Amino acid sequence: MAKKKAQQKAAGKYVYLFGKKTDGNGSMKPLLGGKGANLAEMCRIGLPVPPGFTITTEVCTYYYAHKRTYPAALRAQMQAGVAAIEKQTGKKFGDLKNPLLVSVRSGARDSMPGMMDTILNLGLNDQTVEALAKKTGNPRFAWDCYRRFVQMYGDVVLGVQKRPDEDHEPFETVIETLKHERHHEGIEDTKLTVEDLKELVARFKALVKQRAGKAFPSAPWDQLMGAVGAVFGSWMNDRAIVYRRKYNIPSEWGTAVNVQAMVYGNTGDQSGSGVAFTRNPANGTKEFYGEFLINAQGEDVVAGVRTPSPVSELKKQLPKAYQELERIRHTLERRFKDMQDFEFTIEDGIVYMLQTRNGKRTAMAALKISIDMQKERLIDWKTAVERNPADQFEQLLAPVFDPAEVAKAPVIASGLPAGPGAASGRIYLNADRAVAAAERGEQVLLARLETSPEDLRGMIAAEGILTARGGVSSHAALVARQMGKVCVCGAAALEVDYQGRVVRVAGETFKEGDWMSIDGTAGKVYAGQVKTAPSEIVAGLIDDNAAAKKTEKFRDYQQLMKWCDAATRMVVRTNADTPEQTRNAIAFGAVGIGLCRTEHMFFEGDRIDAMRQMILADTLVARKAALAKLLPYQRDDFAGIFRALKGHPATIRFLDPPLHEFLPHSPDQQQALAKKLGVPTDVIESRVRQLHEFNPMLGLRGCRLGIAFPEISAMQARAVFEAAAIVQKEGMKVRPEIMIPLVGFKKELDLQLEVVHQAARDVQAEQKVKLKYLVGTMIEAPRGALTADEIAQSAEFFSFGTNDLTQMALGMSRDDSGSFLPQYAELEIVKKNPFATIDQTGVGQLVEIAVTKGRQSRPNIKLGICGEHGGDPASIRFFETVGLDYVSCSPYRVPVARLAAAQARLANKVGR
Amino acid sequence: MAKKKAQQKAAGKYVYLFGKKTDGNGSMKPLLGGKGANLAEMCRIGLPVPPGFTITTEVCTYYYAHKRTYPAALRAQMQAGVAAIEKQTGKKFGDLKNPLLVSVRSGARDSMPGMMDTILNLGLNDQTVEALAKKTGNPRFAWDCYRRFVQMYGDVVLGVQKRPDEDHEPFETVIETLKHERHHEGIEDTKLTVEDLKELVARFKALVKQRAGKAFPSAPWDQLMGAVGAVFGSWMNDRAIVYRRKYNIPSEWGTAVNVQAMVYGNTGDQSGSGVAFTRNPANGTKEFYGEFLINAQGEDVVAGVRTPSPVSELKKQLPKAYQELERIRHTLERRFKDMQDFEFTIEDGIVYMLQTRNGKRTAMAALKISIDMQKERLIDWKTAVERNPADQFEQLLAPVFDPAEVAKAPVIASGLPAGPGAASGRIYLNADRAVAAAERGEQVLLARLETSPEDLRGMIAAEGILTARGGVSSHAALVARQMGKVCVCGAAALEVDYQGRVVRVAGETFKEGDWMSIDGTAGKVYAGQVKTAPSEIVAGLIDDNAAAKKTEKFRDYQQLMKWCDAATRMVVRTNADTPEQTRNAIAFGAVGIGLCRTEHMFFEGDRIDAMRQMILADTLVARKAALAKLLPYQRDDFAGIFRALKGHPATIRFLDPPLHEFLPHSPDQQQALAKKLGVPTDVIESRVRQLHEFNPMLGLRGCRLGIAFPEISAMQARAVFEAAAIVQKEGMKVRPEIMIPLVGFKKELDLQLEVVHQAARDVQAEQKVKLKYLVGTMIEAPRGALTADEIAQSAEFFSFGTNDLTQMALGMSRDDSGSFLPQYAELEIVKKNPFATIDQTGVGQLVEIAVTKGRQSRPNIKLGICGEHGGDPASIRFFETVGLDYVSCSPYRVPVARLAAAQARLANKVGR
Repeated sequence: MAKKKAQQKAAGKYVYLFGKKTDGNGSMKPLLGGKGANLAEMCRIGLPVPPGFTITTEVCTYYYAHKRTYPAALRAQMQAGVAAIEKQTGKKFGDLKNPLLVSVRSGARDSMPGMMDTILNLGLNDQTVEALAKKTGNPRFAWDCYRRFVQMYGDVVLGVQKRPDEDHEPFETVIETLKHERHHEGIEDTKLTVEDLKELVARFKALVKQRAGKAFPSAPWDQLMGAVGAVFGSWMNDRAIVYRRKYNIPSEWGTAVNVQAMVYGNTGDQSGSGVAFTRNPANGTKEFYGEFLINAQGEDVVAGVRTPSPVSELKKQLPKAYQELERIRHTLERRFKDMQDFEFTIEDGIVYMLQTRNGKRTAMAALKISIDMQKERLIDWKTAVERNPADQFEQLLAPVFDPAEVAKAPVIASGLPAGPGAASGRIYLNADRAVAAAERGEQVLLARLETSPEDLRGMIAAEGILTARGGVSSHAALVARQMGKVCVCGAAALEVDYQGRVVRVAGETFKEGDWMSIDGTAGKVYAGQVKTAPSEIVAGLIDDNAAAKKTEKFRDYQQLMKWCDAATRMVVRTNADTPEQTRNAIAFGAVGIGLCRTEHMFFEGDRIDAMRQMILADTLVARKAALAKLLPYQRDDFAGIFRALKGHPATIRFLDPPLHEFLPHSPDQQQALAKKLGVPTDVIESRVRQLHEFNPMLGLRGCRLGIAFPEISAMQARAVFEAAAIVQKEGMKVRPEIMIPLVGFKKELDLQLEVVHQAARDVQAEQKVKLKYLVGTMIEAPRGALTADEIAQSAEFFSFGTNDLTQMALGMSRDDSGSFLPQYAELEIVKKNPFATIDQTGVGQLVEIAVTKGRQSRPNIKLGICGEHGGDPASIRFFETVGLDYVSCSPYRVPVARLAAAQARLANKVGR
Repeated sequence: MAKKKAQQKAAGKYVYLFGKKTDGNGSMKPLLGGKGANLAEMCRIGLPVPPGFTITTEVCTYYYAHKRTYPAALRAQMQAGVAAIEKQTGKKFGDLKNPLLVSVRSGARDSMPGMMDTILNLGLNDQTVEALAKKTGNPRFAWDCYRRFVQMYGDVVLGVQKRPDEDHEPFETVIETLKHERHHEGIEDTKLTVEDLKELVARFKALVKQRAGKAFPSAPWDQLMGAVGAVFGSWMNDRAIVYRRKYNIPSEWGTAVNVQAMVYGNTGDQSGSGVAFTRNPANGTKEFYGEFLINAQGEDVVAGVRTPSPVSELKKQLPKAYQELERIRHTLERRFKDMQDFEFTIEDGIVYMLQTRNGKRTAMAALKISIDMQKERLIDWKTAVERNPADQFEQLLAPVFDPAEVAKAPVIASGLPAGPGAASGRIYLNADRAVAAAERGEQVLLARLETSPEDLRGMIAAEGILTARGGVSSHAALVARQMGKVCVCGAAALEVDYQGRVVRVAGETFKEGDWMSIDGTAGKVYAGQVKTAPSEIVAGLIDDNAAAKKTEKFRDYQQLMKWCDAATRMVVRTNADTPEQTRNAIAFGAVGIGLCRTEHMFFEGDRIDAMRQMILADTLVARKAALAKLLPYQRDDFAGIFRALKGHPATIRFLDPPLHEFLPHSPDQQQALAKKLGVPTDVIESRVRQLHEFNPMLGLRGCRLGIAFPEISAMQARAVFEAAAIVQKEGMKVRPEIMIPLVGFKKELDLQLEVVHQAARDVQAEQKVKLKYLVGTMIEAPRGALTADEIAQSAEFFSFGTNDLTQMALGMSRDDSGSFLPQYAELEIVKKNPFATIDQTGVGQLVEIAVTKGRQSRPNIKLGICGEHGGDPASIRFFETVGLDYVSCSPYRVPVARLAAAQARLANKVGR
């Protein structure tokens, strides 16, 4: 089947031109990749783009479906593409007079910085190099291009790379050896002579032959096909896979390949390469922001080896080019209506655009840019809402350094503020050791000269990233921005000694494991650990701090949340067990409690003793006596929560965990408890043994407890209603929603309903009040979802307990799956951790079934979700789609959930 | 809603007449109950039935839905019913000249022997008793009726019963006291004088007033309404609930009430009452079978107090009545086409029919009757198949006493062969102690004078039942027959001493806890324990015993199985892990293995050591070395199984349980293992700790093992294919079907598929053979069922692992649910144990979803089930409905499953 389909496609269009004739446009990202589509779009709006063509992502898919081969029609279409470039540039591929050189770059649908490989100067060989030298009158330039090309191609396409037993890259070793032989030690590569370069090319080729077992290809078409294969091949390299996993990019998307005429930033002092942003990607300020290197190719800027200069300096050095770039910057924003991250090359004073894409930005920048662009009428308020990435939004609530503490801390270096926020940690100089330290539970800062894709795992593990070299578009800055990591880069005062595993700065030596602190908003590095304080938003909302409320960040946040409220359908509640948690969540905009776990209340102070007495009781009378002690505690807790809610509803879950969780398990603790309660130790031992279960997750818990011991539910119901009566008499509205956990059978709920309603009748009669309340259930066993039509006959609401639903539907214990889930992610069995983001295909079906069946029986049934997924943006999108009434999450996730719920609604609406 | 509906029904028909005018017929059992429908039917075919009417089961439902009240229209319809009886009998209810007396009896849809209560002689009071005396000229008879009525009504309707502090029934105490006062000690009740009886009535009424707090009702209509209420009330008594639970009768069905003119078996020597069967219900012989008591009411026969005479003696005593009964017996079988169990009363030589119903019978009787009736052309072969109750069919395979052993055993008593089979056990004389002993794990015989409904729990717990009194229609015999218990009743030589807790017989004294053995086929009682031998069917099939094959039982069984094969669509496989189990299952008619659990093979002999080495290995090399030791064992096992299968397919499940199950857990065992394997103890300890899981059911098991350690699957696959190659070269067909357990994601299966196919390619190349095999999966995680469309793209078959599917869908661990499932059954949260009979509403939905989706992706996918439910008739009916291709069960359940599968198919076919 797949083969047949592919054969039909073989007659399709695989190559899209851009330049004077442009086949594609900016909307064709899935087919042309982000880079290819935007190159086409820039051509369409008249920006200066060197001509080229894009090989579609479908070819990548074909490549992997057909044992790494290409569709038959590809070659001819590529030839036509090369001919079009030749026509526009007047050069010819492999020509001995005016040879065309091309770059070959990857370009996936979403940009994947640093992940894919690039080949420059393709088309050079021993003949064309001479032609280039002659044509440009610059043999040094030509041979330097050739040297770079052989090195890059040898590395990326032919796999000549550092072996574990080597200290350096083999090509670098060849260069160092030559410099040593010719007494050039320490000179820059740019100072190598034509003869040096010729010798290097020869030695590089010999190295390639030795290592790769075959000669370096000299025919340009062989070079081109090899490079295209290498780009496709790199789609499945480890770094790309790690990246895709972190950002949940399906491997099926594939990458496109862009073949484009070369332009040169390294032809002399009127040339250069740069990377820029239409606004500041770290904090969102509307300014031309970026950096460049004179007399350099683009790769040099991103690699972070030489520290580039800010674009503002271009104004002085190449004012015409600067003016052109300013024009381009505005054109780009007007066209793409978003902050752009673009690459340019200046060849002999002429600006060429090599790429543009929506710029990655920090959550803080995203907030400011979205608010500003709406003010500028570039986007409407709904788009502004959509522009804030919900999964990074929590960064805005992350602590900053405590102003008092930070004033006392010694600043040891300054650098570029590449990832805002505050982070303290023990420094590690290598990714592996950083990961190991983080796994030991340490707080880690990754400190390096510069970072490269190999450091990705270490960056993920670290609280913050600190580099001595590289600018705001260096790998470290890009990745930190995207991940929301605190980052200071280019802190040149740091001497990072990989060998000695120390960082020397300001006359001090910091060993691995020593503490440093970095302020990624201010670009400052401190010695030691610095205390943090709440972010302005938290300070404004929770602490009612007037100064914080005046900050732009706070005002922008409030504006965004106002829009979110206007856009949203699904409201956000919170999971809270105390009045304080409740107050915080309400301050963050929660409109009630979606899950109040009553068992947490039994652990405080003396309560646990009464709870244990209850569990150890072997008669109903003794159990009721112990429960009577617990009742006032619960009543007071509920009253406090009701007051904090200020009239909002509270879903209160009755006792859920297995009873053994309340009893001590070690002999010492058991003896102590025995003494305290005045019972023989063996009574406790035997009860613990009796309560032992092989699979407690599937044992005597949830409503099974309330059914076995209805007096527990009766006590809890009485505590709820007594508290409600008290608070209602104080003049406040109270809306308890009692939730019976783990219901799989309607009859279970019915039995508990009787107990609850009886308590309600009793309390209302005793207290002479009328109470409004609901009784519902958690849908967390698959059977509950499958028989939701029956259960909804009795349940006034459902709350999806997606944690347990996931555990049961997948047959995976959250506590135990650590032994295989990481491997499952690596093998792409699961695309995302199903306990973090709901498994829509499996668990999601159960939710959909329950929603449909529940509404069949009770059209106005209230539907919510209170599992961990309630604070996860991807899951919230799903819950909006199935039409839940609310999600519930922990207090500090409430803003994220509000944003995600609003975005989900906007995405769901027809016409948007 | 329910109320409104019921009010509409209030205008309906609640009372159905029978007699000269008959409203109902035999097909109306749901509405009229079994007794009412058959009374109507007997009237229609002209049998002599005293007139009466039936109050429908809808009234019972109404009664419980409306706080034990009746529909408004009921009273008027009952009055019309009484009028009709009056008209036909010429008597009048409450009349002072010719008073009508009636019986009031329950009658549920399915007969529930001994469960419901009956009132006789209703309508008597101080006035009508005189009229009856005058009319019959028999004051003794009239007063005896009155005495019985007050006693029965006082007991059943007014609740005057033995209190825990009393030794005897209070009415019996009154009788004994009177006898003592009047020096009548020891005389039979029939010898009491009219004066005695009058005095008894007075004292009974005083007792009622004292105990019940109100006077005995004298108005006949008050009596009647009270009796009807008592029948409905008894529907919810404990005995009835226990019975319904055992036989899975929904409580919603309710019971009908039959009100019928009295006829008298106690008017003298030309009168009597009896219970009879149209064939022998214990062994199926075609003979008039039953028993009667001269000058007795029906209750006396069933109560087992007097031992009745066989019906054959009626031929001599009342030849005309005997002739009439013989005629009726044939009429009944011709009309009902099934063996009937009927009650009759002879009043002054005239036969009256009080009831008929399909007779309960042993599995052995069911088999013979079904085969015989087909030969007699009373029924067709399909009906014959349906007539064998599948859930009792296993009885036919139950062991009998070993002929050699039983010849040496001392016969200590003989009785009626009331429940065929052989049972040895320790005797207990009371239900509570029998239950307690069984719970301790003892094999128990319940030995009693006679049994009553109070003994039900004890009867369920016992291997066999032995009574000293009572005939083949006594309570003990009826219940034993229905439950398939071995039973000898009426073994009059036994002296059962409840007080001393001993049984004295043949000069010996047997204390509680002493062994006895009973042969319920021969009616013999032996001292001590007697060894058993396989039943004729097992001997014939498994042992190829020629003598066994000549028995009628064996031949009937073979005939039935032939018909089953003709009727069935869904075939039966077996769960077998050894060649012997496989051979047995094939002999029982299995057509392959549905589940071969490979882990069982790792426990035998030295293998466990290699297995443990494999688990303890911390390198791939070490693991592979240990696996290499296991390979030959597995290969030999598989080869043995393939040979035993004789070409049938074998579904082989790869390693499934968590690895810790293979390691020792106590310090002693760990030390021993350390010594044996030459590794430090702490390596073992630490591995055990590392493998510990909170919920192993949801942990690292199933295919997760094979994915973590592909070399395990590779070894298992190689073992399967090498064994297949060996046996195939021996000239036998081999059909391995490799089953990957616990698949929830298609990718899991895909990864294991690669390993399996690689092993297949390797072995085929090495051995130069071509092997046919399938690879499929177990659907046992809910996600597997929900994404069956995806999984079926890779799976060539599904086997439903309904054990785990039940555990996960219900969130109930089989091992842990013992702490609440019994209560769940009592509260009717679950109707049946979901681990014994599939929970069709919940788990069944997952099966249906998977079947539908699986077939969508792969129309010819093979579908089976290998959980415990594969041997359960009720579950098999469901699997037939959803269209599975096979069920798989343990070898000794294969015959049951074949019968159940055939019956399910017959029930499913349109037009049947």
